[in-house]
Amino acid sequence: MKRETVQVLLEALPYIKEFHGKTFVIKFGGSAMKNENAKEAFIKDLVLLKYTGINPVIVHGGGSEISSLMNQLGIEPVFKNGYRITDEKTMEIVEMVLVGKVNKDIVMNINLHGGKAIGVCGKDGELLLAEKETKYGDIGYVGKVKKVDTTLIKGLLVEGYIPVIAPIGFGEDGTSYNINADIVAAEIAKSLEVEKLVLLTDVDGVFKDGKLLPILSSKEAEDLIEKNIVKGGMIPKLQCAISAVNSGVKSVHIINGGVEHALLLEIFSKEGIGTMIKNLEV
Amino acid sequence: MKRETVQVLLEALPYIKEFHGKTFVIKFGGSAMKNENAKEAFIKDLVLLKYTGINPVIVHGGGSEISSLMNQLGIEPVFKNGYRITDEKTMEIVEMVLVGKVNKDIVMNINLHGGKAIGVCGKDGELLLAEKETKYGDIGYVGKVKKVDTTLIKGLLVEGYIPVIAPIGFGEDGTSYNINADIVAAEIAKSLEVEKLVLLTDVDGVFKDGKLLPILSSKEAEDLIEKNIVKGGMIPKLQCAISAVNSGVKSVHIINGGVEHALLLEIFSKEGIGTMIKNLEV
Amino acid sequence: MKRETVQVLLEALPYIKEFHGKTFVIKFGGSAMKNENAKEAFIKDLVLLKYTGINPVIVHGGGSEISSLMNQLGIEPVFKNGYRITDEKTMEIVEMVLVGKVNKDIVMNINLHGGKAIGVCGKDGELLLAEKETKYGDIGYVGKVKKVDTTLIKGLLVEGYIPVIAPIGFGEDGTSYNINADIVAAEIAKSLEVEKLVLLTDVDGVFKDGKLLPILSSKEAEDLIEKNIVKGGMIPKLQCAISAVNSGVKSVHIINGGVEHALLLEIFSKEGIGTMIKNLEV
Amino acid sequence: MKRETVQVLLEALPYIKEFHGKTFVIKFGGSAMKNENAKEAFIKDLVLLKYTGINPVIVHGGGSEISSLMNQLGIEPVFKNGYRITDEKTMEIVEMVLVGKVNKDIVMNINLHGGKAIGVCGKDGELLLAEKETKYGDIGYVGKVKKVDTTLIKGLLVEGYIPVIAPIGFGEDGTSYNINADIVAAEIAKSLEVEKLVLLTDVDGVFKDGKLLPILSSKEAEDLIEKNIVKGGMIPKLQCAISAVNSGVKSVHIINGGVEHALLLEIFSKEGIGTMIKNLEV
Amino acid sequence: MKRETVQVLLEALPYIKEFHGKTFVIKFGGSAMKNENAKEAFIKDLVLLKYTGINPVIVHGGGSEISSLMNQLGIEPVFKNGYRITDEKTMEIVEMVLVGKVNKDIVMNINLHGGKAIGVCGKDGELLLAEKETKYGDIGYVGKVKKVDTTLIKGLLVEGYIPVIAPIGFGEDGTSYNINADIVAAEIAKSLEVEKLVLLTDVDGVFKDGKLLPILSSKEAEDLIEKNIVKGGMIPKLQCAISAVNSGVKSVHIINGGVEHALLLEIFSKEGIGTMIKNLEV
Amino acid sequence: MKRETVQVLLEALPYIKEFHGKTFVIKFGGSAMKNENAKEAFIKDLVLLKYTGINPVIVHGGGSEISSLMNQLGIEPVFKNGYRITDEKTMEIVEMVLVGKVNKDIVMNINLHGGKAIGVCGKDGELLLAEKETKYGDIGYVGKVKKVDTTLIKGLLVEGYIPVIAPIGFGEDGTSYNINADIVAAEIAKSLEVEKLVLLTDVDGVFKDGKLLPILSSKEAEDLIEKNIVKGGMIPKLQCAISAVNSGVKSVHIINGGVEHALLLEIFSKEGIGTMIKNLEV
Repeated sequence: MKRETVQVLLEALPYIKEFHGKTFVIKFGGSAMKNENAKEAFIKDLVLLKYTGINPVIVHGGGSEISSLMNQLGIEPVFKNGYRITDEKTMEIVEMVLVGKVNKDIVMNINLHGGKAIGVCGKDGELLLAEKETKYGDIGYVGKVKKVDTTLIKGLLVEGYIPVIAPIGFGEDGTSYNINADIVAAEIAKSLEVEKLVLLTDVDGVFKDGKLLPILSSKEAEDLIEKNIVKGGMIPKLQCAISAVNSGVKSVHIINGGVEHALLLEIFSKEGIGTMIKNLEV
Repeated sequence: MKRETVQVLLEALPYIKEFHGKTFVIKFGGSAMKNENAKEAFIKDLVLLKYTGINPVIVHGGGSEISSLMNQLGIEPVFKNGYRITDEKTMEIVEMVLVGKVNKDIVMNINLHGGKAIGVCGKDGELLLAEKETKYGDIGYVGKVKKVDTTLIKGLLVEGYIPVIAPIGFGEDGTSYNINADIVAAEIAKSLEVEKLVLLTDVDGVFKDGKLLPILSSKEAEDLIEKNIVKGGMIPKLQCAISAVNSGVKSVHIINGGVEHALLLEIFSKEGIGTMIKNLEV
Repeated sequence: MKRETVQVLLEALPYIKEFHGKTFVIKFGGSAMKNENAKEAFIKDLVLLKYTGINPVIVHGGGSEISSLMNQLGIEPVFKNGYRITDEKTMEIVEMVLVGKVNKDIVMNINLHGGKAIGVCGKDGELLLAEKETKYGDIGYVGKVKKVDTTLIKGLLVEGYIPVIAPIGFGEDGTSYNINADIVAAEIAKSLEVEKLVLLTDVDGVFKDGKLLPILSSKEAEDLIEKNIVKGGMIPKLQCAISAVNSGVKSVHIINGGVEHALLLEIFSKEGIGTMIKNLEV
Repeated sequence: MKRETVQVLLEALPYIKEFHGKTFVIKFGGSAMKNENAKEAFIKDLVLLKYTGINPVIVHGGGSEISSLMNQLGIEPVFKNGYRITDEKTMEIVEMVLVGKVNKDIVMNINLHGGKAIGVCGKDGELLLAEKETKYGDIGYVGKVKKVDTTLIKGLLVEGYIPVIAPIGFGEDGTSYNINADIVAAEIAKSLEVEKLVLLTDVDGVFKDGKLLPILSSKEAEDLIEKNIVKGGMIPKLQCAISAVNSGVKSVHIINGGVEHALLLEIFSKEGIGTMIKNLEV
Repeated sequence: MKRETVQVLLEALPYIKEFHGKTFVIKFGGSAMKNENAKEAFIKDLVLLKYTGINPVIVHGGGSEISSLMNQLGIEPVFKNGYRITDEKTMEIVEMVLVGKVNKDIVMNINLHGGKAIGVCGKDGELLLAEKETKYGDIGYVGKVKKVDTTLIKGLLVEGYIPVIAPIGFGEDGTSYNINADIVAAEIAKSLEVEKLVLLTDVDGVFKDGKLLPILSSKEAEDLIEKNIVKGGMIPKLQCAISAVNSGVKSVHIINGGVEHALLLEIFSKEGIGTMIKNLEV
Repeated sequence: MKRETVQVLLEALPYIKEFHGKTFVIKFGGSAMKNENAKEAFIKDLVLLKYTGINPVIVHGGGSEISSLMNQLGIEPVFKNGYRITDEKTMEIVEMVLVGKVNKDIVMNINLHGGKAIGVCGKDGELLLAEKETKYGDIGYVGKVKKVDTTLIKGLLVEGYIPVIAPIGFGEDGTSYNINADIVAAEIAKSLEVEKLVLLTDVDGVFKDGKLLPILSSKEAEDLIEKNIVKGGMIPKLQCAISAVNSGVKSVHIINGGVEHALLLEIFSKEGIGTMIKNLEV
């Protein structure tokens, strides 16, 4: 370590102090997961956060890996309003890929970088009770969250583990449900009443008139949706953010997971690199 | 509850007293897993054990489900000396099926019957460090156990959970290894220094001259192998049993998982239904 | 254990689950105490409850043993409105018999059957502050409960003991008081806010028009008293039950202690064998 | 409080410091129990000890009360070698009187003076496993200590209670045994590895040539017995003391319980008022 | 210890019982500190209190030692309205003398008498946040208490230490402030919600018409100030007492620290030797 | 935070992982204390260490501040073999300056930078029992360490505080002793069995033939002394280092405290900036 670099380390100190002992829920998915460099940078960031006293909880997606196995099995992925139409066979594939491949791959990577990770899905310890999502008609085993029981997650955090959660829920009869990872992350963040919810996406944040908005109140975020300024996949992300902020999460960050070390760049600096949504009135 | 049946309940009392607060590692696989009635009976037995103060830890197999997905993907399963030759693609399938399907199916079933289960594999919390098994030449990603770290399992037991373990290990570089479930069960039993290791198989126990042997010392078990009295798949099972008993596990039980409630019938009675291996000299 | 009998064991599972970790106060007296078979069956039931995770607290009577020693000492027992007229000499006999004989006999029996019991009276740890009962004039050292301090009982339960309580209270000047065991059981049940209060009596439960009433709301129980449908010794028992249910005890059971295993038959079945009083409106 | 009296209080300080947090087993019996003034003084001393951080454990006798009830029941007390010949009827009386009368009377007195006492006998929590004493032939239900389990006593001390123990043991089949209180006190002192064992007797201590011996090594105490210098009831007391000191009890005190405040006078001064036995060589 | 003196010890028992487990904040200063006999008597009293289960917290002054060092350094002490005018150099002297000399001298004395003391000032653990006192104009680094954080003190009490506090506060920029010790004692007493605040002064208590007032309500104390009955240095002391009593301190005692054992004489007797201020209406 | 700087942060990660949860004793003195920039850099380094999970314990000197007050008081400082000849008056000054000025100044600085510091000296909690140092004849109240009791320090570390220790010891009669801060740091490091002892000095480390030696075994360090290669003040420092390493301290670092951020530069890099002494044979 050279003299100049110590200075850099000390720049992070105010943020380390501020967030020491706090919990962050982080949705990991999209390019952050597909790009090997971004992925490794993300894992390193996680482990650094853990060692500086911040407790990360990871919720991951894995859409492209699912489609890949479906293709190998000769099944055509079909989407409706951004949701994967999920018949019984597809549900089985979703669960195998998310829980048995993507989740354990993340766990292994964290452990190799010096963290202690545990991978679970919504069935473990009855974490995510779900029910059928019907707002776009019958799209099969797509679920929404009915009840979150974070007893298991809290216990793992106390023991110093990094929980890694696959977004699979269970119905009251044991049926598996495929749930959107952003929604799962937001619901867990709300249930744990965390300091921050971070959503890694494939864009740099929320834009208006071609300009990135660094900070938004939940009220402003609602306006952007109402006035059709934000569109497509950003709408449900913003809705997650608004819902989280209104339920006690201190701030939500929408950042570009494809940027290496996006997580540290957002958290350990004043201006950040993406969009932060807060309840500014409070 | 009728008067006669109370008597039955009280028959179990001496066993409940004896094993209260003790831990049992149970290998669940074979017909017990394929036969729906036997499977449900097994789950119910587990939950009853838990409520009477015994701590079950489950290690499961899942060979037939693996072969089924391989077939769907057009890959021919190949075996050598009872081990599945496991190339990279096969390893991926093994992990997806065991961790993402079989494991979570057991977890869900236990929860539906009133237990609180958590499913993990050998990567979670660095439970099972593995290395390549080479005694039959290069058979790919088949592993053997190099080190067991039961910190996670102990923590889950203290919190009242039933741990359910998929027999996947990790190498020092993060490589996945497919490990025999009997071996994993025996290694975890040894590491936890448990009261009992129970291996559910497809036969009634160990036979000699056509007669079931209800009890064996580890010395006698060694003789049966040496003199070629036991053969085939029973040999590695007996070796697991001998190794466990010699390392401090109080007794090992080899029973027929296809018999409904085999677990309770073995544990809550004097004579049992299978073969018990103990260190009789002690 | 035979195959059919496992089924019986599993019948109890829903009740074991429901009452796991809960506390029951059980008044033990009358024929249950005098009939050796019923007594041994009761002790076995207690120990089974304890091992399945239920915490029993026993309050006992002992009237016939008291009268027996009085007779040996040439003192004539005299009763008024069901209360034993208790002069100083009688009080000394009551205390010696209940605390020094009946209580320790129960403690010893529980220990011999594998439980860990501790016998105490209302003086130990200032459990039962009493004052003179005057509603039927001066009947000597008959007391009523003025204040219950369950610190000691809670401590014993945490340590895994079965507390066995002799119904002797103390006045503010240290005077001993003889208190009705049903009342002591009800007051302790209220103070501990338990799941169940079970009163073992010599009849099968509460009857109306010659028919056993399996379930009663506290309101219905009050009506039965008001309309003179129940009579004699059942009236104070029902009053104890009503008072307990109205103060937060979930249910009160009046059952025939002379029936072997009455306790398990009542608790581990849907219909039970006696009368249950609940606050049905809640 | 006057100025001179503060000085007195401070005189006790070195002893309070020395014994803070230590446990004393005190055998209470004889004149200390019969003389009302000595008894009240003893109870006050106990409570003061407790408040200054010393943990007293009381073991009591009660011979004269037993004989009194036997006389009322027309039974003649018979003794042999200082032991009460104890047939079944006598054993019942012994237990009722010690446990149901003497013990609870001491408990009540301590509570009235501001302590928190719990009375138990050797059956509670399986404190005193006993077997028949046969060294003087068959003298009935007189027992000797076979095993001490102080789990219960330790738990009560942690909770701040003063345990009061009646010297009744139980045989492996549940039979009651009458055990000498000095022996019970010594065995409990040894099992708890206490600082002091104090035996209250009816004489001022151990004498030689008409002079009180203020301090004795266990070796000197053995000599006094061997050379017939001490006689009668003092012999078993000295044997208890020697056995206790040789098993790790720091010192044993034999003092005159008939002297008011004998306990404080012995403990809170350099010279004491009775005889102290220590392992001087250590 | 002689027989008569035991009686004396027992006289203290009711007070020991009453205050067992309670915390007292004691302001130590004036003649109590200058007179060697009074000082040693005070230290002994403290240690006795600690051993009888009372938790003393000491706040000390040290004016004369400060003036002495100032004189050696050729600086003339100047006072205004009873406050020492404190320029930067003086503040440095005040802090060195109070923290580095007086405080450690008290700590050492307590330890030599068998207590376990820890000396701290208002900077340690951010105990006393202060701000400039301006009510008498600019008198330099004289401070008043802005916020008390007793986390450290509570932790030390749990570990069994006697905290000894020098009345130095810190400003938000780290500036040192000299604060009146009576005020610090009162603020800490309020923050800890203690049983008693004891102020050792150089007079016997509060007088009216030449007569010592043994007890005062806070209302009466206010009247005495309003009607100019008390004067000079007693006014701020009474204001501290009133403020403490009105904020939940049970009683405040103003006693003459020059009297040997003033502390015990006040606390361990009914009438006391000084003036007690209580909220009599409650 | 810019992208390049994140990289810097991650460079520290391996060191943060390695030392997480470990304790370092750091001797702070000399130029590190006199140079305002170096001092502030040191304090920031400390706080960063604390937030990354390392527990620093500070021992400080303060020689120049002592001499300054002595000069103001007209006393001439006299040294012999590097020790300050310490008469009674000097000892008083040493204690006031170290405990009442230097110590609290460090505490205040740490708190202002976001740490939680507590300043103590060797008298608090009887941390440092000392005796007269006589190896250079009578040099007054100069002491050496006789016994270290780190109960207090361990308790403060558990509560999350940074202990700051002034090197003042106490004799068995309460006499104050002035002890060399390097020796105190080494003795505390040995008693706590810490990971690292860091000595901040005014030179860059240990030199041989004009070249800085980056690493030394304790054997090599002994040779350097024996062969007169190191001289003057470095000899006692090396002796402290050798003694610490031989008693279980993992490594000792001698670094130049005048270099800004010397602490982080030494700890968070492979090569370091000073000399490390280790027990290389182990």
